[in-house]
Amino acid sequence: MNQNKYNEELLSFPKTRRGEETLEKITNSAEQLFGSKGYTNTSINDIAGGADVAPGTFYIYFKDKLSLFRYLVNKLEFTLRKELSVAIKDCESRFDQEYFGFRTFFSFLNRHRGLFKIIWEAQFVDPDLFKNYYETIAISYARRIKAAQENGEIRKNIDPAVAAYSFLGICNFIGLKWIIFDDKPVPDEVLRDVMSIIKDGAFSV
Amino acid sequence: MNQNKYNEELLSFPKTRRGEETLEKITNSAEQLFGSKGYTNTSINDIAGGADVAPGTFYIYFKDKLSLFRYLVNKLEFTLRKELSVAIKDCESRFDQEYFGFRTFFSFLNRHRGLFKIIWEAQFVDPDLFKNYYETIAISYARRIKAAQENGEIRKNIDPAVAAYSFLGICNFIGLKWIIFDDKPVPDEVLRDVMSIIKDGAFSV
Repeated sequence: MNQNKYNEELLSFPKTRRGEETLEKITNSAEQLFGSKGYTNTSINDIAGGADVAPGTFYIYFKDKLSLFRYLVNKLEFTLRKELSVAIKDCESRFDQEYFGFRTFFSFLNRHRGLFKIIWEAQFVDPDLFKNYYETIAISYARRIKAAQENGEIRKNIDPAVAAYSFLGICNFIGLKWIIFDDKPVPDEVLRDVMSIIKDGAFSV
Repeated sequence: MNQNKYNEELLSFPKTRRGEETLEKITNSAEQLFGSKGYTNTSINDIAGGADVAPGTFYIYFKDKLSLFRYLVNKLEFTLRKELSVAIKDCESRFDQEYFGFRTFFSFLNRHRGLFKIIWEAQFVDPDLFKNYYETIAISYARRIKAAQENGEIRKNIDPAVAAYSFLGICNFIGLKWIIFDDKPVPDEVLRDVMSIIKDGAFSV
């Protein structure tokens, strides 16, 4: 059985393949609806309808809409961190890890286009969940940066938390501009400039 | 008469000092409410109550709640850009402009603590308004970066739009972490590390 934190919200863990598929249909429907019209404007009936299941089926897995929202946010955070971890595991340098990390985030955002709506609406729905989403990502990011300081790749005179939040900010805002506003994948030359900024800064020496 | 873009939302421009004060009370009440419980959960009666004016007074200035929301977002954007422009006008280098620009944004966020709730809820309320808020700020930022490339302060091999969105991202996420999550002013040493990252990058040479 899957012990990931997001599963804490589940009333019952699916016991069959068919149950897993049903849970996934409910989650996907919620992601689609929360990520377009939003949590506040979405009902459990809407979610069940989008998943093509009876409203009663919803209550096999979740106590209420809030519980599903928390499950979804925690699952997005877990899935993103897992994809990042897979993407960087064979990299030989911290710089390559950053490069593949940024690419992975952009690909994730492209596949989860409602991400910013869902996460930032959590400011209202459940402020601790919102904070926890970014803090969990930042803490794991800062841990990797610290390791790269210890092996001499990243400068030691920068607080790893400051670097982590700075890089997270770059990632999120570059994704916001190119993927969400301009509705296209992040061009290679944009990623190249981003990497150049985090490596050497933007100012002339 | 004030020709700022945000005034386009006004049904009538206040003609007396007292009228100006009333409009300001309504705007402040809206900022406080939209920035805590949110646009969706706030009624015109709540706003009038918070401003200590009769509901009818609201309709002297605004057609509806959406119109006030647009006025508020555009006013926040205008006010922020004006504060930034004043803060950097006597700086002798682009680096100093960045330093005072970051400080000014942090101070603004500290005085407008509902900013992120208001701006990111605009994703649902009025997606073009949301996009316009960041695009307007980024375009004016990129213009200054371009000027600093022309005089040799910022490297010419970076797209100014990429630098602008990267710096905006850093600014927003450092503010999110220290001011909103940790509920304190951004410490001097955090700003020093941020400046070091944008100047020289984070990697060892």
